[in-house]
Amino acid sequence: MSESREQVQEQIKVQGEVVRKLKAAKEAKEKIDEEVAKLLKLKAKLSDNESATPQKFTLKTPKGTRDYNPDQMSLRLSVLNKVIEVFKKHGADTIDTPVFELKEVLTGKYGEDSKLIYDLKDQGGEILSMRYDLTVPLARYIAMNKVSSIKRYHIAKVYRRDNPAMTKGRYREFYQCDFDIAGTYDPMLPDAECVKVVSEILSSLNIGDFVVKLNHRKLLDGMFEACDVPQDKFRTICSAVDKLDKVSWADVKKEMIDEKGLDEKSADKIGEYVRLSGGEELVEKLLNDEKLKNVKSAVQGLEDMKLLLKYCNIFGIKNQVRFDLSLARGLDYYTGVIYEAVLLGDEKDRKKGEETIGSVAGGGRYDNLVGMFDTKGKQVPCVGVSIGVERVFAILESKNAASKTKIRSSEIQVYVASAHKGLQEKRLELLSKLWDGGIKAEHSYKSNPKLLVQLQYCEEQQIPFALVLGDSELERGIVKFRDVLTRKEQELPIDNLVEAIKWNLSNKGY
Amino acid sequence: MSESREQVQEQIKVQGEVVRKLKAAKEAKEKIDEEVAKLLKLKAKLSDNESATPQKFTLKTPKGTRDYNPDQMSLRLSVLNKVIEVFKKHGADTIDTPVFELKEVLTGKYGEDSKLIYDLKDQGGEILSMRYDLTVPLARYIAMNKVSSIKRYHIAKVYRRDNPAMTKGRYREFYQCDFDIAGTYDPMLPDAECVKVVSEILSSLNIGDFVVKLNHRKLLDGMFEACDVPQDKFRTICSAVDKLDKVSWADVKKEMIDEKGLDEKSADKIGEYVRLSGGEELVEKLLNDEKLKNVKSAVQGLEDMKLLLKYCNIFGIKNQVRFDLSLARGLDYYTGVIYEAVLLGDEKDRKKGEETIGSVAGGGRYDNLVGMFDTKGKQVPCVGVSIGVERVFAILESKNAASKTKIRSSEIQVYVASAHKGLQEKRLELLSKLWDGGIKAEHSYKSNPKLLVQLQYCEEQQIPFALVLGDSELERGIVKFRDVLTRKEQELPIDNLVEAIKWNLSNKGY
Repeated sequence: MSESREQVQEQIKVQGEVVRKLKAAKEAKEKIDEEVAKLLKLKAKLSDNESATPQKFTLKTPKGTRDYNPDQMSLRLSVLNKVIEVFKKHGADTIDTPVFELKEVLTGKYGEDSKLIYDLKDQGGEILSMRYDLTVPLARYIAMNKVSSIKRYHIAKVYRRDNPAMTKGRYREFYQCDFDIAGTYDPMLPDAECVKVVSEILSSLNIGDFVVKLNHRKLLDGMFEACDVPQDKFRTICSAVDKLDKVSWADVKKEMIDEKGLDEKSADKIGEYVRLSGGEELVEKLLNDEKLKNVKSAVQGLEDMKLLLKYCNIFGIKNQVRFDLSLARGLDYYTGVIYEAVLLGDEKDRKKGEETIGSVAGGGRYDNLVGMFDTKGKQVPCVGVSIGVERVFAILESKNAASKTKIRSSEIQVYVASAHKGLQEKRLELLSKLWDGGIKAEHSYKSNPKLLVQLQYCEEQQIPFALVLGDSELERGIVKFRDVLTRKEQELPIDNLVEAIKWNLSNKGY
Repeated sequence: MSESREQVQEQIKVQGEVVRKLKAAKEAKEKIDEEVAKLLKLKAKLSDNESATPQKFTLKTPKGTRDYNPDQMSLRLSVLNKVIEVFKKHGADTIDTPVFELKEVLTGKYGEDSKLIYDLKDQGGEILSMRYDLTVPLARYIAMNKVSSIKRYHIAKVYRRDNPAMTKGRYREFYQCDFDIAGTYDPMLPDAECVKVVSEILSSLNIGDFVVKLNHRKLLDGMFEACDVPQDKFRTICSAVDKLDKVSWADVKKEMIDEKGLDEKSADKIGEYVRLSGGEELVEKLLNDEKLKNVKSAVQGLEDMKLLLKYCNIFGIKNQVRFDLSLARGLDYYTGVIYEAVLLGDEKDRKKGEETIGSVAGGGRYDNLVGMFDTKGKQVPCVGVSIGVERVFAILESKNAASKTKIRSSEIQVYVASAHKGLQEKRLELLSKLWDGGIKAEHSYKSNPKLLVQLQYCEEQQIPFALVLGDSELERGIVKFRDVLTRKEQELPIDNLVEAIKWNLSNKGY
């Protein structure tokens, strides 16, 4: 990158010019902003007399976002608990980072996708952007806290100003669920564990058969080199290849030639490679490939793949992985192995030419990202995977809808009911006893509710038991304990009510 | 609000004018944006050769925010689990809403605090703001989904551009932890349950003695009326009273007179009332107060308080609540009972004149908020409390620091070690067996680690057991199972290794 003195001076001159123009533009914008602010104020004043009446704007969540209702949340929490169990089984801790970062932290990490980043308004102070993923914040965390090694999971929402396709489960606010291993270790050991983690998670969620596609960034680069792609076109050609899971090779080739200015011969060579997929035998074949075997980075990538496939073998997941040269993944920061898990159902759809929603998991190795944040450029190698939980939620929700499974979101064990009027205070007294005894209980918020209404509520809400208070029983120091389903009733002594109820609950498996 | 035909026409004319100017301004801005974009691209190209070098800006999280490391997270999760247990005991579901809302949703809900709202940059499309609390989003959710009743908890981060005081645990991004009951019910029943929930939670966290202060928005308004405060000054005077937990009466009085333009006589009358606090007897006393008993809203408020205190009595938390006329709470949307729980330690500090960090829980009734979002103004009465979990985290962290309690964030049960070189593949094979058997296990990411190093790691990480592989044992079909603490070893058969380990784990209470 050394340049002649003239070039540098020229650059400095142009830079100065640019800065001057930017300043001028900024000032112009500020003036306009002021004017607009004034006008808006005026507008507001004019419509002040509306502010008392109920609001006029259409009530909605921001474009590409949504609320989760109690049923959706209990499904989500049950899925996330299964995922977390696997993460913990592999010794992962969890951390949390702010939902926004200094804009500078995110710049230059996402290549062509950077335009999708949400920025916050400059309200005086720092310039902030919403996190785009959980990987860059992790790298920032590692560099900032001088962490030399960490195995962590992080489940949180990320933000992308993408074109939402709710029907396909693509949103602008969505959960990411990441597992990463940072530290300097022997080749492919953490990488293989990530594949194992993906396989364990996807198996535990019973969302159907899946395959984890594997490829290597160095092999891709070596392949591009072998296909005479100019160095400065590697990244953009790579993100073209990345689209192969959504569009046909013909379209990708067209993009390479027409949009990215690649010559047809190179494109065709690439086309031959990206058709290939298989296992250890394919690695061997490519190690002997006339074009590739003379490209250093290609050979490095293939050696890594060889080791990774061997470890996957030992981990007993040979049949769940596939070495696939069409797997690219657009993100700039990958430096080694890359993964993507797809449901086999999707594969069929893809052959049928239908667009699929996307992968259920993906990730890879990014050894240089932390170094971008370290003032001395100190590197901490990282590898990780992200579980596409939103996709999993969507699949399970449609499954439940199909099977008409009714999820019970509340966990109430006992409903405290009264058989007739005038028992409210006694009801509250016993209810309080149950709560203090750790029993999940509720009651009607009516002072004198009808017994039938209370019992119907129990049945609708699938509350297993009801405590029914009545004067005659209370005089005898007992209350009725009713099994809502069988409608069988027994008498429990008020003196040690909590113990008696707990005994019944555990007996009946609650 | 009826206006003359001329006024309306005039407004329409001006409105049109405003809209036209706004359009023009928008277009002008867009032109500039384009130019700026071009210039920035050029600038970027010029400085491309810098992008390789490590970043220059100081690495930090945005002002008023922070990362949570694994130890902090495991403390947080354990606290939140206790809190959630109580919420579930009372039959609460959970929901989730987007982290940002249409700006219009938040406008006019927070009175003087609105200036603290984070806005997103206008990148074309909707104007968005970060949520300021979880209450307004809940009201929006209820109105939008036409929910008539819901009991929900919501734990999520909220955003306020406040002056951060990290030492006091005040951040710009922080967790809120809310429990709300929405629906039309008999007086004070949900309100009393909220107090009970607060009491159960604070008791379960063992952060010291506390008191839940109770007051009523209607009583406050009635009190202001009785003290001859002009109607249009109620809110602003209320938010002055709200500061009494941080500053002295003298300062509050000064603010009322100098800043809010209240006359001294009214201020002094208020001063007499806000000194009062007590229980049911105070309610009786105020019901007979010459000034108050003739003010309708004051009497309504007092009748509510009477009932609330009675229910708290039945719930067995009489000694944990206190009717306190100095409790105001600034937020505009409260309409009835208001709560605030403070640690008694703080009370002492306050008497000593030290500023305290704030309450550990607070909330109240807001019956008109949902109606503000319903196109027909349909109301859904709500009452709720927010647990100040950030404050709780801070207290427990300093406790742990003082007692030098070491939190163990990882849950690994078994570490798979090798006694000598050349065992890597066998190690991976057994490790995989353990994972597939549901045992939390890890190993060294070195191909040939030293045994001593591996065992030291187990002791540092407080991993209870180690599986030690050696050729001689492997030949005999067994492996050593080592208790890391006692260093006692026993032999386990490889054939049913998982069962043998599980048996040992449960025997030793893991």
